[in-house]
Amino acid sequence: MVPHLVTALTGPINELEQRVLDSMSAIERWFRLEWMEHTPPFYCSVDLRNAGFKLAPVDTNLFPRGWQNLAGPMLPLAVQAAMAAIEKICPEARNLLIIPENTTQNTFYLSNLVQLRRIFHMAGLNVRIGSINPAIKKSTLIELPHGDSITLEPVIRLRGRLGVKDFDPCTILLNNDLRAGVPGILEDINEQYLLPPLHAGWSSRRNSAHFKCYEEVAKRFGKLIGIDAWLIYPMYETCGVVDFGTDDGMLHLSRKVDAMLAKVKKKYKEYGIKEKPFVVVKADNSSNGMGLLTVRDSKELVALRQTGGVHDIVLQEGVLTHERMHDAVAEPVVYLMDRYVVGGFYRVHAERNVDENLNAPGASYVPLTFAESMHLPQPGVRPGASVPNRFYMYGVVARLAMLAASYELEASDPQNEESA
Amino acid sequence: MVPHLVTALTGPINELEQRVLDSMSAIERWFRLEWMEHTPPFYCSVDLRNAGFKLAPVDTNLFPRGWQNLAGPMLPLAVQAAMAAIEKICPEARNLLIIPENTTQNTFYLSNLVQLRRIFHMAGLNVRIGSINPAIKKSTLIELPHGDSITLEPVIRLRGRLGVKDFDPCTILLNNDLRAGVPGILEDINEQYLLPPLHAGWSSRRNSAHFKCYEEVAKRFGKLIGIDAWLIYPMYETCGVVDFGTDDGMLHLSRKVDAMLAKVKKKYKEYGIKEKPFVVVKADNSSNGMGLLTVRDSKELVALRQTGGVHDIVLQEGVLTHERMHDAVAEPVVYLMDRYVVGGFYRVHAERNVDENLNAPGASYVPLTFAESMHLPQPGVRPGASVPNRFYMYGVVARLAMLAASYELEASDPQNEESA
Repeated sequence: MVPHLVTALTGPINELEQRVLDSMSAIERWFRLEWMEHTPPFYCSVDLRNAGFKLAPVDTNLFPRGWQNLAGPMLPLAVQAAMAAIEKICPEARNLLIIPENTTQNTFYLSNLVQLRRIFHMAGLNVRIGSINPAIKKSTLIELPHGDSITLEPVIRLRGRLGVKDFDPCTILLNNDLRAGVPGILEDINEQYLLPPLHAGWSSRRNSAHFKCYEEVAKRFGKLIGIDAWLIYPMYETCGVVDFGTDDGMLHLSRKVDAMLAKVKKKYKEYGIKEKPFVVVKADNSSNGMGLLTVRDSKELVALRQTGGVHDIVLQEGVLTHERMHDAVAEPVVYLMDRYVVGGFYRVHAERNVDENLNAPGASYVPLTFAESMHLPQPGVRPGASVPNRFYMYGVVARLAMLAASYELEASDPQNEESA
Repeated sequence: MVPHLVTALTGPINELEQRVLDSMSAIERWFRLEWMEHTPPFYCSVDLRNAGFKLAPVDTNLFPRGWQNLAGPMLPLAVQAAMAAIEKICPEARNLLIIPENTTQNTFYLSNLVQLRRIFHMAGLNVRIGSINPAIKKSTLIELPHGDSITLEPVIRLRGRLGVKDFDPCTILLNNDLRAGVPGILEDINEQYLLPPLHAGWSSRRNSAHFKCYEEVAKRFGKLIGIDAWLIYPMYETCGVVDFGTDDGMLHLSRKVDAMLAKVKKKYKEYGIKEKPFVVVKADNSSNGMGLLTVRDSKELVALRQTGGVHDIVLQEGVLTHERMHDAVAEPVVYLMDRYVVGGFYRVHAERNVDENLNAPGASYVPLTFAESMHLPQPGVRPGASVPNRFYMYGVVARLAMLAASYELEASDPQNEESA
């Protein structure tokens, strides 16, 4: 069931893994105490990259899709976590409304909704799917492969409450990242739990805010277990608003890229790493692949000059992946609900390189029974030699990203700003 | 992985299963609300019997052993539940002390300890085993099959606290049912969490108190989903103290048995059940097989006359098992931690009959990946035809028994009596 993985079995990653395993009880206690003070995002998925010498999250999705890629034997973990989450938020809950992306055509996405509906149904809720797509004017049944089907119903707003016809939910679960902005119908919902909160959406979220929180979390965690935090975080640098169409804009970006490459190079030298550093140029207000560029040299930025436009830009240290599956480049994606790791899979892309974004057309997904492994390191087994041990470390780093998201959402909460 | 099961696919059990599946969201909500008011026992295991026409728990063990029989893929569920339990009891916990039975020879039992230690270690605790066996005078390493080993250390009492050498636990987990009485070293522990509480031990616990609570829970649950509660509970009758050595004592018992058999017969008639009713004679203060007798006719009680002695007796309606595995009689045992079903197995006995106690020498254990199934009914699948659906029902009934244990422990708590 667990595919053959090719990871670098020597070098700093094994020391990191050993440190993580040796510190397991301290780590778990630390998380317990953190979750007493901070509320985990309802759910999230974290893209990790294992470079062989460092392991870092590169993307933390607060509206995770892809649940259909989780292996069946892992589902009970998700159900149990969902039960725990619901119990805390609204123990009296009967009804849950899921608000999905607006697509009606993407069967992969719709299968993701089927899986989410299954998880919450098994946790004991009546689940309906309420679409905010203006094209969904009436209850719409969509047949899916494997005999599944999904019914999208138009969301109804009645005074302060959201629902669908004859269905008044206690909790509304957003699976829509709101990249196009917050529709009015979702605003000022005060009587129901709307999760994640609107300010987690990409209309207000910023990558740089997450990176900043993650760096802080990683540094504190690094102190806890006695490691250089750089081994678990990608450096980042905000560039502010950059006009790709002007020489000034491009020069500014180019200097920032050179500076970041120099910082990475220095770190590589410190650890005797022979790889070529690279930097990922990201739009600060989107996790989307659109507009992303990977550069090993600032000269390559010329590609952006041609696209033009004005963008709020953040640079992220590139973390290459040394994991492969059947000769294709692979990266793990870890799924979390409430404070628990509930599963994951490998995103595999045969046509991409180790320093490229794999979240692109052509990617395939290999579900892993992380279930057995995420919580279950095998003490005494040589670091790097045990898949369960590796996965425990993945679960730890993914939870650090989730914790960073919790800090991020606290800091960006408009209600906290008002009271501050 | 899931063995072939032979269960009665017709009759009331399927109606019951259909009702349970149809009421899933109401059931889960009901449990959530119950657990807001009542604390689940830290852990327990529940023996179930599926008679084809009724499904009932026949034994609820508050010091469950046999954890080693759970399937590996289920362990993450136990770990996740242990994390949830610890978080509620003592989020700052670093150290857990397990107090086991006194045996040093029973490798099955010691393997159970290895498994418990593994679960709590993975949940992030330092775990040590503190024996109250007077023969354990120093740290004692015992090698076990499959390369496992376990170290038993003598428990140390320092003023109000229990520990072992250089180890001060926050929580003490009893895996010793205290049938021989509560040793002084365990009394008056006020600074640490001692779980389950001492009054859960067999020195003070009574089967009849549990049966009473279970009957109440079952009746409320029966109303909730609209079924005759008898379909999920065994009738019981307390007999008080019976002197097996006197005619009066045996006559008293005999009348009680006849009355119980008549009640069962009436129920069988009501449902058109052709089986022969039977009654299980149990010592009220022990879940142990010792002294148990199964009788189809009060004449069979003569066997007890020969054993003599004075016993506090409770009668339980016999629930036969119609489940078989490879031609051997089987009964499911469900494991719970905190409020969650975390696994189970089939207890199988080739040399016992459908109306006999299977918890006896010669029994074997077939771990089941209940994991995938306990929380995961398959809506739309014909009742009885789906193993996952059957197991969901098992998980529900086991949780009813756990809830009854929670009521039972509240009622028997000496602190509640004092304040009442």
